[in-house]
Amino acid sequence: MLQNDLEGKRVIIALGGNALGDTPSEQLKLLAHASKNLAHMVKEGINVVVTHGNGPQVGIINKAFELAAADKSSNMPHMPLSDCNAMSQSYIGSQLTCQLMSQFREQDIMRNVANVPTHVIVDPNDPAFQDFEKPIGDFMTKEQAQAYAKETGYEVHEDSGRGWRRVVPSPTPQSIVEIDTIHDLMEDGCVVIAAGGGGIPVFEKDGEYSAVDAIVDKDLTSAILAWQVRADILVILTAVEKVYLDFNKPTQRALDTMTVRDARTYLAQGQFAPGSMMPKVEACVKFVEAHPGGKAIITSLDHAAEGLRGETGTTIVANAD
Amino acid sequence: MLQNDLEGKRVIIALGGNALGDTPSEQLKLLAHASKNLAHMVKEGINVVVTHGNGPQVGIINKAFELAAADKSSNMPHMPLSDCNAMSQSYIGSQLTCQLMSQFREQDIMRNVANVPTHVIVDPNDPAFQDFEKPIGDFMTKEQAQAYAKETGYEVHEDSGRGWRRVVPSPTPQSIVEIDTIHDLMEDGCVVIAAGGGGIPVFEKDGEYSAVDAIVDKDLTSAILAWQVRADILVILTAVEKVYLDFNKPTQRALDTMTVRDARTYLAQGQFAPGSMMPKVEACVKFVEAHPGGKAIITSLDHAAEGLRGETGTTIVANAD
Repeated sequence: MLQNDLEGKRVIIALGGNALGDTPSEQLKLLAHASKNLAHMVKEGINVVVTHGNGPQVGIINKAFELAAADKSSNMPHMPLSDCNAMSQSYIGSQLTCQLMSQFREQDIMRNVANVPTHVIVDPNDPAFQDFEKPIGDFMTKEQAQAYAKETGYEVHEDSGRGWRRVVPSPTPQSIVEIDTIHDLMEDGCVVIAAGGGGIPVFEKDGEYSAVDAIVDKDLTSAILAWQVRADILVILTAVEKVYLDFNKPTQRALDTMTVRDARTYLAQGQFAPGSMMPKVEACVKFVEAHPGGKAIITSLDHAAEGLRGETGTTIVANAD
Repeated sequence: MLQNDLEGKRVIIALGGNALGDTPSEQLKLLAHASKNLAHMVKEGINVVVTHGNGPQVGIINKAFELAAADKSSNMPHMPLSDCNAMSQSYIGSQLTCQLMSQFREQDIMRNVANVPTHVIVDPNDPAFQDFEKPIGDFMTKEQAQAYAKETGYEVHEDSGRGWRRVVPSPTPQSIVEIDTIHDLMEDGCVVIAAGGGGIPVFEKDGEYSAVDAIVDKDLTSAILAWQVRADILVILTAVEKVYLDFNKPTQRALDTMTVRDARTYLAQGQFAPGSMMPKVEACVKFVEAHPGGKAIITSLDHAAEGLRGETGTTIVANAD
């Protein structure tokens, strides 16, 4: 194989939750499709860590245990969110491992795949632990929510006029526990699946590690991971080929490149939707600011390989000065 | 640290299901205890892979999804056993990672820990796929079982006069998909958690990997793993300090050592209980026969470090001639 620009480059690819579906069979089909695109990227000779969302999946797992435990005759234990989080990482990671291996064989790519369920250190003093703001699970009436809160000890909130839901903290990821392992495997050419669902949040206090019931933003964790391995490129995959200004308005226009300064201006203008494009742009800014030699790309799964080659997508780079 | 006999030795330690409990909080407590003992072993300077059972855990996960799906209003998807199997690996593996890290810090052991959910290749022509023999899940009446079989397409059997249960195949493990990753991490001094619950069984056909609803014996997979990394020692942990002849009879006596030939004789005599000591001894025989330079030890968790140093337990070695 001829050397190219990308040969040996360290690339973190964050797969969106929308690529994963709602049921095991749907997920398998969508991961097969994602794996074909990921294999096209790996074929460029890059060293890769694939991260992924887990929103619908951790929701399904959590709901299954809640429904099962609600049937008192079942004797089912209460399953903490941290454990559901862990489960979701190998539920997705194992299917993805098989699909990637299959695609690699088909495309003659001689790479191993390893799924490393990942823990991420969070700070007990993070303000997120004062003000829970991540809604999870089904909608309830106020009365249902209050009974549920009383029984479980969970926090519940009214969610944007649509009903009541459980809310959990969404703390900022500080560092990744398995970083050396992930780094070494990536450098050895193994395609690593890691930091699924943003990682399992843990407190580390006096050398004691304990898991926390919280959800960490997967794009932010991907940015931390990219920074900790000094990645050349962070690719955040989403539903659109490029980032837009004035999205869905007559004045909508696509961005090919933005500097960190541009991105901050657009963020301040409220150009990007919270919970959607905003955290992705913020994660890119976080990575490129910490590691100005790196760049970040936001594009869609179907344009991922082109995006990696610089042919499409929106690239976020350090300020020129 | 002074060099000792064990420094740098490759050791596979198989943790029994009895060490893991039935609920998340029970499991956490038992894994803390197990981790203390595992840390004592790691302190000897060995390079380690820890494997573990998942019987009760995959049972709980499977049951939660079955109960949830039985409530038709829940819209819960059917969750295949292969996915439950995957989930159990990071449910246990993530708790074990945190407990091991905590113990390592307490005992001043400078090692990383990585959990690698593992796939194991099985043969579609394995006779186990003709004659399902591993019961899983709750007991049912004959009528319940027949209705359940009709609805799910699962196989059900009468289980030793105690009622009806779902049965799944228990094929023989052939080789471990993630073997290179596990080997490299172990050689780098990372404490690897792998092959949980015997691994997720997969068919590999024309380069296509697909997961199978089956349960692989974790001791057999541990033996394959030990052979594939050319381990020096396979340690299988169980409830007793040593293997006994005439177990629970007045003539009961403990074994310090047995050769492969001795073991085969005792197995033929029916000395070891099926589903209990028998598969453990068989796994040890399998490993030592394939790799006569290695040895296998069966002992209890609380005697594990002594067993590793050759001070207790039952050691299985190759025939002298």
